[in-house]
Amino acid sequence: MSQPSQSTPAALKHAGWGAQHPEPCTLVIFGASGDLTHRKLLPTLAHLDFQHPLPKATAIVGFARRPNTDEQFRKDALESVDKFSPADEEPLDEQAKQSFAARLFYHQADFNDAAGYKSLAELLDKLDHERGGKGNRIFYLATPPSAYTTIIAQLGAAGLNRQQREGAKGWSRVIIEKPFGRDLASAQGLNEEIGEIFREEQIYRIDHYLGKETVQNLMAFRFGNGIFEPLWNQKYVDHVQILVAESLGVGTRGGYYEEAGTIRDMVQNHMMQLLCLIGMEPPAAFDANSLRDEKVKLLRSIRPLNSQEVAARTVRAQYRAGQVDGTEIPDYRKEQGVAPNSMTDTYVALKLFIENWRWAGVPFYLRTGKALPKRSTEIVIFFKQAPYLLFAGEGEERAPNVLIVRVQPDEGIALQIGAKIPGPQMQLAPVALDFMYSQAFGAGTPEAYERLLVDCMLGDSTLFIRRDEVESAWTLIDSIVNGWNGSGRRSLPTYEAGTWGPREADELIERDNRQWWNP
Amino acid sequence: MSQPSQSTPAALKHAGWGAQHPEPCTLVIFGASGDLTHRKLLPTLAHLDFQHPLPKATAIVGFARRPNTDEQFRKDALESVDKFSPADEEPLDEQAKQSFAARLFYHQADFNDAAGYKSLAELLDKLDHERGGKGNRIFYLATPPSAYTTIIAQLGAAGLNRQQREGAKGWSRVIIEKPFGRDLASAQGLNEEIGEIFREEQIYRIDHYLGKETVQNLMAFRFGNGIFEPLWNQKYVDHVQILVAESLGVGTRGGYYEEAGTIRDMVQNHMMQLLCLIGMEPPAAFDANSLRDEKVKLLRSIRPLNSQEVAARTVRAQYRAGQVDGTEIPDYRKEQGVAPNSMTDTYVALKLFIENWRWAGVPFYLRTGKALPKRSTEIVIFFKQAPYLLFAGEGEERAPNVLIVRVQPDEGIALQIGAKIPGPQMQLAPVALDFMYSQAFGAGTPEAYERLLVDCMLGDSTLFIRRDEVESAWTLIDSIVNGWNGSGRRSLPTYEAGTWGPREADELIERDNRQWWNP
Repeated sequence: MSQPSQSTPAALKHAGWGAQHPEPCTLVIFGASGDLTHRKLLPTLAHLDFQHPLPKATAIVGFARRPNTDEQFRKDALESVDKFSPADEEPLDEQAKQSFAARLFYHQADFNDAAGYKSLAELLDKLDHERGGKGNRIFYLATPPSAYTTIIAQLGAAGLNRQQREGAKGWSRVIIEKPFGRDLASAQGLNEEIGEIFREEQIYRIDHYLGKETVQNLMAFRFGNGIFEPLWNQKYVDHVQILVAESLGVGTRGGYYEEAGTIRDMVQNHMMQLLCLIGMEPPAAFDANSLRDEKVKLLRSIRPLNSQEVAARTVRAQYRAGQVDGTEIPDYRKEQGVAPNSMTDTYVALKLFIENWRWAGVPFYLRTGKALPKRSTEIVIFFKQAPYLLFAGEGEERAPNVLIVRVQPDEGIALQIGAKIPGPQMQLAPVALDFMYSQAFGAGTPEAYERLLVDCMLGDSTLFIRRDEVESAWTLIDSIVNGWNGSGRRSLPTYEAGTWGPREADELIERDNRQWWNP
Repeated sequence: MSQPSQSTPAALKHAGWGAQHPEPCTLVIFGASGDLTHRKLLPTLAHLDFQHPLPKATAIVGFARRPNTDEQFRKDALESVDKFSPADEEPLDEQAKQSFAARLFYHQADFNDAAGYKSLAELLDKLDHERGGKGNRIFYLATPPSAYTTIIAQLGAAGLNRQQREGAKGWSRVIIEKPFGRDLASAQGLNEEIGEIFREEQIYRIDHYLGKETVQNLMAFRFGNGIFEPLWNQKYVDHVQILVAESLGVGTRGGYYEEAGTIRDMVQNHMMQLLCLIGMEPPAAFDANSLRDEKVKLLRSIRPLNSQEVAARTVRAQYRAGQVDGTEIPDYRKEQGVAPNSMTDTYVALKLFIENWRWAGVPFYLRTGKALPKRSTEIVIFFKQAPYLLFAGEGEERAPNVLIVRVQPDEGIALQIGAKIPGPQMQLAPVALDFMYSQAFGAGTPEAYERLLVDCMLGDSTLFIRRDEVESAWTLIDSIVNGWNGSGRRSLPTYEAGTWGPREADELIERDNRQWWNP
């Protein structure tokens, strides 16, 4: 909790709570037996409590169908903490484990059983009473999306959308996981249904990419420094590439993936968020509405694509059998739960334009896929060449200025510049000015979920997705999906697992005399 | 000689001769017994010949008063090569040593003995005849400045300022070491006398700083990259600092130093050159006249200082006894050859303005001294803060953007930016994007003298100082020295050896709410 020393960056510790401390609350996790709860939420909450102790009255209630006891839930939770904590985190000591376990409670009920919500309300009141809580609740929907509207409606029917204890001034908030709809219409429908029960400021649509330190650092980088913003426009930027590469295939999630495809699983949320943070105007203030206003403005500056544009500026593809890092991956169409004639995309490449004064004419090339050679998320800004090549006559190597923001892994920033090769000629070679996040701040940047859980406890929705934002992103995605569906195609381009994608994607960018930047 | 591979910067070797090969010539070194010859010129020439073999007919003639033989001069030369070669250079093998030694000849004569120049001319003809030379000569004045005009006049009297062998189209060039005059009048006088014998394009006034790879890289950096030039002006730059720090005292050179002082020894030449390369406009082409036109234009944009400005914007000082790195250094006034009431500066700090559209209002703080804590030459560009501090409310650390060009040692470039400290607050800390010349290109960048000797052989005077350039620099320096001499002061501020200079210099910059950036 001590303030970090500013003088020697190497000695910097993670910043503490600072001036803000969360009020006590009870966090109800729907889907308490699920993967997300055990792999991410419980380990993250345990480490958060260990490093920055939560208020004494804060409790966590697991809500699920499966019969269970508080004791067994606590035991399972501590096992998950041991098993799924990041390797670079300091392990919890015994006292911290016991102290965390004592916050945990289990509530068994079906998601559509009204009595289960009534008894939940009673449990929450009882916990508040026993532990000194203030009636504050967070409902975390860590369930399949099909359960969202049922749970929301039942919370409303049980009055849990409002604070419960008489005389107390508690709040209720709901955290909703992706995918948030599967197109504009379903997202609007979901927003309507949730909006009948919770006000917009109670709704925290989570995209864990926004909780990543390096993603937030994009904003620090752009708006905390004076030297980048003057270059951050069509006068100096040639083009931008955003890559979200996964090395795994769909594995056991073929059934889910068939419904979503990469365009819904990655592009609609994570990639649109990265695009917003790279491209948006400086917000009026660093608060929830100012920031999200700018993101919505940016999304609305990307005109939906017509069918010709979809044909010319998008590529979707499926992986076929291959190796990634020595692991065999089968054809996507042979994965478990995948139709043999599936038209689902496991790879998407897009060329988008942001039609405003800042970015007119600057292509943004987005690329994401499964079964690519490595897991890597990078944003790469290619700056234009110097307007006049002074040293061209002396064998100048064309060394474009490139800024690489590595979101994961090896979080950091590199700036490629041309430097003189030692020797009698004025000959340039590309070299990199490098910054590694881990070298400056040590290993173990906080988990993305940690930051977002804390923000929700603090009532700060800056890093969550607003209703109009999610709908604006769907408007663009719908135009692409409609173009695909209307194309009449019966097959997709394929790429070998362990390669950087199909030939068609290379052609997409090479037509513009540019090349993909592979990490 | 092979072309370096561009793909992997780490594997880059030094660039070779490239398209240009020097013609054979005979290099006559006046002052062949002196320090500069043995410490710098002979080792540099030997390594140059080893790494990029010189034409077969190229010969080197040592000219000095002391009786000596070719054999002994060769022996002495090889000893100097062994003793004074940089530790990171590959040592010459035996064959390379013998091949280099075979190029060496000794010519004994007094500098003012006409007969000695007549016999030199005969020797040069004989060497050309025997070795297949083309009548090309370089006369290197590695002597005390007092001998310059004598040697130049005698070269003229012996007709050595023109090519000598009949029917051959040889050239004659003269290299002149610093100091070039001790004020504007003496520099003009020297230029006049040399100009009567040699045309300006035959005259190579050397400033070895311009031969340093990192100094040339300043130009590559500014004009080979598109992203720095837009920031390189009064709109984005707050101020610039140039530091040339020496850790040694005057040692045995007190006599020379008393005449020169730091202002003539460092500021008039090296620091003015660094200032030119940092501040000048992009030249029309990378050739001798275009580049030097821009440097002169910049020097003429610095208005000479009047006496009030000298009082307000300059600090001179002398070191007093202290320790640098464990070595005791006495008071400057107690050094050998120094007057006990000496008013000679061993430290100078200046605040200059370049009065043009690019730099109006941006102070350039120059600082140089002897007996400072470490040897270091750095140029530091301080950029202005972002115009609006978006994160100020959340404890933003003011982390100004700073670009550090390390000329020596640890040659490289670092860009300091603000990055987000991991944790729940948007709090920034300064971190550095770093580039080390040695990591990209390996150890052992060429000696500054190597590049300059090669350029003179090639007839390329781009990195040498033109007449109007040296005189423009003296115009500024004279205004400062005149201000000092007219001040009526009988004593100077002092600073303890091993510290970064006098209190007065700190006040000079702190008055402007800025601070010296110490390496």
